[in-house]
This record gives sequence, structure tokens and C-alpha cells, in this order.
Amino acid sequence: MATALSRIDIPKQLAETQCRVALVGFGTVGSAVARLLHVRRHDHPLRLTHVCNRNIARKKVSWMGSDVRWTESIQQVLASDVDVVVELMGGMEPAHELARSALQRGKAVVTANKQLIAHFGPELLELARENHQYLGFGACVAGGVPVLSGLHDGLAGDRIVQIRGILNGTCNYILTRIEQAGVSFEDALREAQQSGFAEADPTEDIGGQDAAAKLAILARVGLKIDVSPQQVVCRSVRNIKPLDFEYAHALGCTVRQISTAKLNDRRAYLAVEPSLVQNESPLARVAGSQNLVASTGEFGGETTFGGHGAGGDPTAVAVVSDLLQAARGRSRGIELPGRDAAVPCEFTTDLEAPHYLRFVVRDRPGIIAALAGVLANHHINLDAVLQKPGHTKSGLPFVITLEPCRQKQLDAALTKIAAFDFLAEAPMAMPILK
Amino acid sequence: MATALSRIDIPKQLAETQCRVALVGFGTVGSAVARLLHVRRHDHPLRLTHVCNRNIARKKVSWMGSDVRWTESIQQVLASDVDVVVELMGGMEPAHELARSALQRGKAVVTANKQLIAHFGPELLELARENHQYLGFGACVAGGVPVLSGLHDGLAGDRIVQIRGILNGTCNYILTRIEQAGVSFEDALREAQQSGFAEADPTEDIGGQDAAAKLAILARVGLKIDVSPQQVVCRSVRNIKPLDFEYAHALGCTVRQISTAKLNDRRAYLAVEPSLVQNESPLARVAGSQNLVASTGEFGGETTFGGHGAGGDPTAVAVVSDLLQAARGRSRGIELPGRDAAVPCEFTTDLEAPHYLRFVVRDRPGIIAALAGVLANHHINLDAVLQKPGHTKSGLPFVITLEPCRQKQLDAALTKIAAFDFLAEAPMAMPILK
Repeated sequence: MATALSRIDIPKQLAETQCRVALVGFGTVGSAVARLLHVRRHDHPLRLTHVCNRNIARKKVSWMGSDVRWTESIQQVLASDVDVVVELMGGMEPAHELARSALQRGKAVVTANKQLIAHFGPELLELARENHQYLGFGACVAGGVPVLSGLHDGLAGDRIVQIRGILNGTCNYILTRIEQAGVSFEDALREAQQSGFAEADPTEDIGGQDAAAKLAILARVGLKIDVSPQQVVCRSVRNIKPLDFEYAHALGCTVRQISTAKLNDRRAYLAVEPSLVQNESPLARVAGSQNLVASTGEFGGETTFGGHGAGGDPTAVAVVSDLLQAARGRSRGIELPGRDAAVPCEFTTDLEAPHYLRFVVRDRPGIIAALAGVLANHHINLDAVLQKPGHTKSGLPFVITLEPCRQKQLDAALTKIAAFDFLAEAPMAMPILK
Repeated sequence: MATALSRIDIPKQLAETQCRVALVGFGTVGSAVARLLHVRRHDHPLRLTHVCNRNIARKKVSWMGSDVRWTESIQQVLASDVDVVVELMGGMEPAHELARSALQRGKAVVTANKQLIAHFGPELLELARENHQYLGFGACVAGGVPVLSGLHDGLAGDRIVQIRGILNGTCNYILTRIEQAGVSFEDALREAQQSGFAEADPTEDIGGQDAAAKLAILARVGLKIDVSPQQVVCRSVRNIKPLDFEYAHALGCTVRQISTAKLNDRRAYLAVEPSLVQNESPLARVAGSQNLVASTGEFGGETTFGGHGAGGDPTAVAVVSDLLQAARGRSRGIELPGRDAAVPCEFTTDLEAPHYLRFVVRDRPGIIAALAGVLANHHINLDAVLQKPGHTKSGLPFVITLEPCRQKQLDAALTKIAAFDFLAEAPMAMPILK
């Protein structure tokens, strides 16, 4: 079979003819792609022919060849003879409509738009298949880190059972700043915004929705399950304080926003949440705006992929790598199983894990007894109680670690605990990853 | 162009027909491949039809399907209707002849044989191309870690300028044992042999030749240079002592066998050697028999790939991943530029780096002055002198660190130094990686 099929190949001289590329969206990533194509123009068969953006006049750059057409009209790009449309507008519409139209008109599509692929990936891939076109989206997850192709091709022989990652550079930058400088969440966020590591509106980064879209794509490719971003449990990192790092360090851990997708006995669990990570884990050592993905396979064990998860140049590398696949005449890239082709599974939000609970209380006798009583009533075992000195009685922090318990047990206990009048703040609960 | 080419695709129903696989070599990796194919038999179109080995009778296992033919004859495999031959014999011959014959007879070839690919990769790939066949060798480097496909496809858009890695699990296991348990090199090696992490004859692991073959393949794929393992500078890790870790830790570093391939201004440097690695480097945290590769791209910066570099199951994952590529009808996998297609470069062995020099001397006045004099005569600047207490006067160790100097300068100085009669042992020199 391989014998017969593999005779279908691309003649070398054809594969080396030029491939015409249009960029739609000319912001940070778009201009980095243009620059990379320009700098490496003698190394590859890609030729930039169209750049499309609103207010195109203010976007023009002098170093680009005079054969590039600058336009504000998506229709003009679609009607042109370009071979590949690079969608870098972001958001759902008109990005979705652009990708559909390009594929229908026999053009390959490359995109860095995680929301587009997380929501419409299988549908677009089906359309690409019908039109014998390539759809590349390696840039959607972890920027320049080739984790999607790694899971899809390099680890194809394994059965992946878990994917864990640090997928949001903004959160990781903020958390490592709190850790290293002892500043408050608000100050770290402000710094991140000033240094360009966080957007003016960081809601989706901090809340976990940005990472959830990437995790849904990773889970579809790696675990081969049919999952949408809405099925990912998201918990905000907004309540992490410098003292959480003090307690985490005392426990041999640090705190990170961790994205997890697990598939066990046809039960899938997907979450993006602040978590305690053991110092020995490669996830604990991810500093600043870096990304890391660790996949666990039934046969090959843990494999890690790390690097720059965002930024113009690293994302441009991923886009151009996909463009080279398109130029090589590949029409089948990374696959995203839709409902029909996916591994059947149920989704659960009720995972068992040891937990970290941080309280801030107005001190008085009997607090630990009261909390321990509620936890015991919910069949949750305490592991340890930690209290660092040097705080006032009116805002006294301490930490209780719990032996493995189910999320539902914990949620029920926390609902009871919320009624205690000694709480100066709502408790902060995080899983402790093994 | 992409438009026209991408219509050449594999019809789905064809790609899903069965692909017949022969295993030639049925040791640790071969039996792991067979088991993986068996366990996942409902997930893929691969069907194991032949197992070939010497003394085949003692190799037979009961769980394998009765349709598998057990044979001692390579000729029988070549004459059969198998679609893919998996070469797991190791060594140069008859592996080389088997791969050639299989490709010439219109069969795809998948191999885990790093020496075969490091020495004959471009020639075999040319033969594969002539015969429109797939040649897969992802398992040759870092076992289950998909670093070759990552460099070749995922980072295709970048220009890779440096590859650094821990490519030999045996050495890394021995060095981490010396570091953690303070045992001698000989004891750590004996332990590694008893635990199955080192072979009875570990010469190629310890000397660096095993890693050199892998590095040559990585450099060909990532840096696109024409390089053979003989062009890789190899230095043994055999002289590393527990006290080197003490001094390394005092310098904020650890010691690892590091494989480096650099391409700068058309000058290539390739080496496998014990090196001081800063604690912050991902390479410093690779423990036991794990592998890690860090590539640096001009645009995307550093990307890391880590995981199990050896062992039956991880290597089997890489083999089966390649088999799935063959079954999908791919005839073009990872490319290895031969002389014609490679980036032209000169090879140099004279890299500039800061260095660590460890001496063991019979103590007497004037030793530092004598050494400093020779180094100054060779225009090498001292950075620091470190001496830990608690050693005898007849075998007194100390360390000198040097500011960046060229290898040739250092070699000349060390030749002069070797003549001093106060040396109780030959000095140990290692680069300090930035």
C-alpha cells in the first residue's frame, strides 16, 4: 500500500516554483512575517504579493518589494491569484468568513487565530479537505514552539493521556514577577502592561480563556477528543498574592497558571487554573513570558516542548513554517478530529487532587477547629497546617493542605466555610500537581 | 502553485488500507515496536507481517498474531510483499545493504540506526527519492523526543544557528549519580551497567562518539550543513570527579556531557564534551537518562525538546510515528542535505569560550604563579582561583576559571603546563557555557 501511494509525489521542479502569499492583518505578527519572508527570500519559494489591512496607507513600509500590493479590500485578495491567504486579523468575524472563502476559492489558509481554530477548526479542516487545500494553524498554540506538529506527527505512535502546559505568557510573566519581586498582583499586571507583556484589557489572559482556547486545540490534536473552549474549567489567577509563593516555597513548590487536559478511561478533564507545581517539574522552571507543554504518553512517557509562546518573531516562525508546508504541496497538515472521528468521552469537572487552601482571617480561638470540622464532615483529610509569623491579628493568613479529595467535595466544604464570620477574605483554593 | 500541487493528495479510502510491516532485528526496540503495534492495532492501519532475526526460534512470543511470519532470512523479507521494512539491527552492515535493497525494491524504510543515517543518510535519502519511497529515521536521535521533525517542519521558517543537547542518557545518568551521590566515575559507571543504563562496553557513550552521530544528524537537519560524525570534536567524560561538581556548584553551574553544533558566518563548530552549564539553563536540569535538545533560531530564539532519549518503548513510539507517515503515503519525510544541497561552510575546532581548569598538585610554594605565568604568556586572562579545604598536600585540587579564550590558545598553554613536575594528575579543562 505504501508502495503504491508513495509514488504520488510532488515533482521537485514544481515544488520549487514560487508560492504567492497574501497577508490579511498587518499588526505585530503580520509585519514580523513580512520581515522574515523578506530576510530569507533567497532560502524559500514564498513570495509576498498582497498585504491587506484597514487604513493601509499608514502601514506601508519602504523595505518591501514594489511588487507587493497594499490593499484594504479582502475581496481583492480573494479574487487575486494568491496561493495562500495568511489570516492574522484575529477574532471570529470576518476571520471565519475569510478562511472559508479562501478555501472555497482553492487557496490554502494559514492562521495564528486560536479562537478561530478552537471554535471552527474541524469545520474549516473539512472544507479544506473538500477543496484539497492546506489549512495550517501551528502558530495558534505556544507561538514558535512546534508542539502541535510534535503531538500530531512526532508522537503519532503513542497514545497521549495527559497534556499539561503553561500556555499564557502574560500570566506567567505576572506570576514570576510576584514571585521574584514580591509585588502585588495589581502592580505586576501594571508592569506587564508597561513592558508590553500584557494587553490593555488582560481579562482573557488572567481569567484563563486565552489558554483555554489553546488547550482545546492541543487536546483535539493530542488526545483526539471533540472539545470546545467552553468545556474547559477556568479559574482566575487574580487572587494570587506574594504570600502564596512564600507558602508554596515552604511546600517545595511554586505557583503557575497551568492548563491541563487529561483523558482517563474515556473521561476527559480540562482546566486552566492557578496550581501548585513541585520545584522538580519542568513547569516550575518556566520563567517570564515563556511557554512549555509537557505531554504524557502511555508508551513514551513525558515529552516537553518549550520556547517563546508569543511575540512577533516566534509567531512569524510558526506561520512561515506552515507556509513552507503549503508551498511543498501538502494538503494534509495537522488534523483536528470533529465529532465523528474523535475518541468518544464524557467531560468531568470533578477531579481528585491534593489541595492548597489559603485563608486570611480575623484571629480568634477555634478557627482551625471550625475549619477542620467542616472538612471532616465532607470526608476531607488535612495534610498540614502552615502559618508564617509577622502578620496582624485582623488579617492573619495561614494555609491548610489537603490530602487528595474530589473537586465536588471541596466545593461543598468551601460553601459551608464561606459562612464563617472570621474570614477576612474569601479562601483561595488550588490543586497541588503531582 | 500550492493550488495546483495540493490537488495531488491521497484518497482517504486508500490511505486507510493496511500497510504491511516487517521488523528486521527483534531486540529491545524491535519487541517494543511489535507490542505497541499489537496494543494499538485498532487505532492504525499498520499490520506486522514479518519478524526477522538470527536464532528466531528463541525470539517467538505467543501474544503475536498467527499471521506473522518468523524468519531468519533477510532475503525472504525483501522478496515479500511488505510495504515497509523496519531496520533495527544496528551497526553498519548488513543494515546499510538491507536499507538499500528495500528501497530499490520499492519498499519504504524506517530505521532507528543513528550510525547508518549519520554516515549514509543523504545517499539513502537520494535512493528513496529515486524510488519514490519514504525513509524515516526520527528514532535515531533522542529516542521518543520528536526533535528532528520539530527542527525540520515546525521550525522550518526560522534560520537555526545553534543546537545544544544532552544526547547520551548513559553519560547523563553517570554524571547525575556522581553529582547526587558523590561516587567516583568508576562506581557510577558500574551502577549504570547494573541498572541497565549503560552497556557492557560503554566506550562510545563515554567518549562521545554515540552523541556525535546524533549531533551530525541534528546539524544536517537543523543547520542544513553537510557533516559527518568524524567532524565532531569528542572529549571523554571519564575524568570527571565528584570534586568537579563541588567547584561547578560554587560557580553556579553543574557538569554535563553537552553536544554543540554552531553555525556562524559560514563557520561550523561541532563538539561533544563535558561542559559547565549554568544552573538556570534547561540543560542543567536534565536528570538521569533523559535527553534535551535546545535549538536557537535567528528569529524564534530558543526552543527546547525534552524526554526519554532511549529505551524500548520511547524509541518504539518514534518508529511507529514514522510508520504512520509511511502508511499515510508520504514519500518525503525529513530531508538530509547532501553536499550539493547543503549550506556551504568551513569546519573549525577553535571556538572562543570561558573555561574551567581543574588541577591536582603536590603542594609547594609558587604553583599559582607558575600557572598564571604560562597562561599570561598565551594571552589568557584568569577570572578566578577556587580552592576548597580538606585535601592532602600530596593531592591538592584547585580550580582556575579563565576569561574567554580560543581553544588553540588553551591547548598551547596546557601543553606547556603538562611539563610542570608539581602536577599529580593531568589537568581537566572544560568550557563554561553561556
